[in-house]
Amino acid sequence: MSIRVNFENNLEELKSKITEMGELSIVALERSFKALKTQDVEIALKVIEGDTAIDNLEIEINQFAIWIMAKEAPVSRDLREIIGVLKISSEIERVADFGVNIAKATIKIGNTTSLLDITQLEKMKDISIEMLRKALRSFLEENILLAKEVGDLEEDVDQYSAETYKRLTAYLSEHSEETNQLVQLLFVNRFLERTADHITNIAESTAYLIKGQIYDFNS
Amino acid sequence: MSIRVNFENNLEELKSKITEMGELSIVALERSFKALKTQDVEIALKVIEGDTAIDNLEIEINQFAIWIMAKEAPVSRDLREIIGVLKISSEIERVADFGVNIAKATIKIGNTTSLLDITQLEKMKDISIEMLRKALRSFLEENILLAKEVGDLEEDVDQYSAETYKRLTAYLSEHSEETNQLVQLLFVNRFLERTADHITNIAESTAYLIKGQIYDFNS
Repeated sequence: MSIRVNFENNLEELKSKITEMGELSIVALERSFKALKTQDVEIALKVIEGDTAIDNLEIEINQFAIWIMAKEAPVSRDLREIIGVLKISSEIERVADFGVNIAKATIKIGNTTSLLDITQLEKMKDISIEMLRKALRSFLEENILLAKEVGDLEEDVDQYSAETYKRLTAYLSEHSEETNQLVQLLFVNRFLERTADHITNIAESTAYLIKGQIYDFNS
Repeated sequence: MSIRVNFENNLEELKSKITEMGELSIVALERSFKALKTQDVEIALKVIEGDTAIDNLEIEINQFAIWIMAKEAPVSRDLREIIGVLKISSEIERVADFGVNIAKATIKIGNTTSLLDITQLEKMKDISIEMLRKALRSFLEENILLAKEVGDLEEDVDQYSAETYKRLTAYLSEHSEETNQLVQLLFVNRFLERTADHITNIAESTAYLIKGQIYDFNS
């Protein structure tokens, strides 16, 4: 097999691992939110346990990428692609971490009557998952238009987040007996806003590896 | 010059850039906390503006590391060292980001009477800076004992953080008129706890590049 074909095969394998990691992160986000919504500590614990698999995948991806670099010493675009994979896997790992954070908040909230309805958190979660799917497709198909769409969706999440912050703090000033839950929901609000930021970073890394130029979709 | 000498020189330059980035992050943390303590919006804005320099340094380090990999195709320990530099620079960048987050919280708090005294945030900041200095020295001197000390200090930060959370939420249930400031201080508490986590990651990356083995000082 030629070196070129070898490199392409290795890159394909890396990409399929990234896809797997992305799918697991989507599951983590969906599940952690389900746990939060249904106040199900069992599901929350599953999300926390499941995170090891995602962490291990990241380590595997890193080691594989290092092995490719050592073996094939890729240059220019190929090298950019490998570095892109390293960056994207670390961003996906952070998204999964936010799933774990939401699961932990769920456990801290316990089973007091849920105040989720006064927030826009579910919408933020839905948009974040849409963003992650687009960011992954954008990376796999090297589609810069999809990457730009991710940046646009992030603005929606930011708006819902600002609204949720206002609603939660207003409610908090009048219901001190709910302090614990409201503080945890304020954290979840931040986690989801940050999730969207990191997914935007994936889109930016993708844009960088397609165009060889640094983008900032966050601002 | 031999390839070896070249590589060593390049690595030294990378390390000096890491040191510079680390110093700037320490300044960012110190300043952001000073802004919080003295409720000085001017200083807070300086921290936010100063973050661009740190971000740029990270980009510079990444590009330089990529250039070294492309040019010299390092293997085994050399490669581990370059990958270590990439990981460490991204962790330092995150520490600096928490400085920015504290600065933003400062601005949101404004000039209502400070409630900082009921928290352990200053201690957490002091320990975090001590941890960062140790982690950087551990990396530069390839000293694994220092890396382990970082892991121990992180436990202290975690304890102060748990205590601060309790105090702030207890105070919050009785002083709803201070909701805004207290919520922001709860965020700062989390930022500092996460800062300590990321500094611990630096120590773990250092341990990995010294020993070629993955460590988890967080658990």
